[in-house]
Amino acid sequence: MATLLKAAPISQRIVKDLTYECTQLKEKGLTPHLQVILVGEHPPSVIYTRNKKKFMENMGATCDIHKLPEDISEKDFLEILKGHGSNPKNNGLFVQLPLPSHLSHIDVGQLVPPEKDVDGFHAHNLYSLLSGDKGDNSLLPCTPKGVITMLQEHNVTLEGKKVAIIGRSLIVGKPLTLLMTNHNATVTLCHSRTENLKEVCQNADIIVAAIGKARFLDNSFLNKDKNQILIDVGINHDESGKLCGDIDQASVEDHCALLTPVPGGVGKMTILSLGENLIQATKIQMENSHV
Amino acid sequence: MATLLKAAPISQRIVKDLTYECTQLKEKGLTPHLQVILVGEHPPSVIYTRNKKKFMENMGATCDIHKLPEDISEKDFLEILKGHGSNPKNNGLFVQLPLPSHLSHIDVGQLVPPEKDVDGFHAHNLYSLLSGDKGDNSLLPCTPKGVITMLQEHNVTLEGKKVAIIGRSLIVGKPLTLLMTNHNATVTLCHSRTENLKEVCQNADIIVAAIGKARFLDNSFLNKDKNQILIDVGINHDESGKLCGDIDQASVEDHCALLTPVPGGVGKMTILSLGENLIQATKIQMENSHV
Repeated sequence: MATLLKAAPISQRIVKDLTYECTQLKEKGLTPHLQVILVGEHPPSVIYTRNKKKFMENMGATCDIHKLPEDISEKDFLEILKGHGSNPKNNGLFVQLPLPSHLSHIDVGQLVPPEKDVDGFHAHNLYSLLSGDKGDNSLLPCTPKGVITMLQEHNVTLEGKKVAIIGRSLIVGKPLTLLMTNHNATVTLCHSRTENLKEVCQNADIIVAAIGKARFLDNSFLNKDKNQILIDVGINHDESGKLCGDIDQASVEDHCALLTPVPGGVGKMTILSLGENLIQATKIQMENSHV
Repeated sequence: MATLLKAAPISQRIVKDLTYECTQLKEKGLTPHLQVILVGEHPPSVIYTRNKKKFMENMGATCDIHKLPEDISEKDFLEILKGHGSNPKNNGLFVQLPLPSHLSHIDVGQLVPPEKDVDGFHAHNLYSLLSGDKGDNSLLPCTPKGVITMLQEHNVTLEGKKVAIIGRSLIVGKPLTLLMTNHNATVTLCHSRTENLKEVCQNADIIVAAIGKARFLDNSFLNKDKNQILIDVGINHDESGKLCGDIDQASVEDHCALLTPVPGGVGKMTILSLGENLIQATKIQMENSHV
């Protein structure tokens, strides 16, 4: 039976490290501050932002959620976003998505200064990934970063590994392809138009499912070696409303070596990455101000 | 024996189209203008910039090469670059590489305004690729764009194809991975740390060699079907000084369906892409000025 790659023990270690880093920064007179913008009262967004605030405060940073009315005008929204971007008090800044439909055309990630972009989606941060960075000099998108952290914690080296990533999104599939390539893995980026997807997966050492289809990947995608590592990025609800991933855990667990559960796997890593990005953003700004 | 995918016949068609587009723009009072900056007298760079100027003038655009002394200070260089960037006369702008060593740390692609970035390496243009753009709304890196044009001209569809790209550079491998993915191919990005490279290549419908090793890829990388398409992005010199690609043409030509020669293949496409980007840049600026 596969070992479950759970986030909880990793979380303990990382929260401890982040708390230490916060203390160090505070001793230099800098308390990392995350500014969140929340438009409207979309219930999951309210919960997500509350959890992020709690996490940041728990590690010793501060966090403020600026709540804006659902019907705020585009002009006012952009002005407030710009104001937060230029406020030196804010070390990290992001807008909780989704935005109401009248604002949804705005690519908010591009309007946050790159050095405060704790979500890691500003073009300048993604450019670092294209340039070969592993995250040492940039702010990485949180979910791809979390996947790498998880593998590293379990001593899985990426060097020379064959990886099949299913799903070509801007949020996960594409940046993770670049990041894993920078870690010397050989990545095949698969998607809805990929032919012989099962064959590609059977050939891989590591499979990442990031397509958003409940329990899509079952054991028919695996080879017989029982050595494969399965990373489940999906967060879906099945017909009965139960939370589940893109991987059918019951089907694969006797056919692979390592498997991330849903819930309690990659999803939980994302908030840790956000915390790491806030610390890194604060350090980048500190260095910039000394130049 | 493989059909050779030569650039010359494609070039004729594209130059005709570009000339027509230039005429159209001129009728609207706009002659596309390319500004080139050349530092020093590196002989290949002198030839490249001269060829680019000739090409632009041949299609009806104008082109100016601003020659700067080899020992220009960083401050003066950056000021001149900035001046050209903000000059509304310049529709396209690029700095010929390589720069002298005292300037080589400058990432010039990021200092050109994205809407004038005919080389396609500004973070904002690469971000479009990550967002799924096929080049309709952005300026694409010239070599990847040229590869796609070549395949389209020979009615090779990318949808559902398996592609092995060898070489993970910022110039070719990574942007071409994204671009081909946006065209619905399934891409495996290979590099020096890839294990079983021959197996990956044998499994591919299309192989792109972009590693910079003279005649690296021979028929041992191919399968027996003789249906594979080989794209050679390499421009090398062999021991005797002869120009050659990354693919050993003599070795593979009886074992594949289509093959781009070196010289006369992908290399020639790059300047066509530059011409297309200049036209597109001019149009983008025209639209922006009307907003």
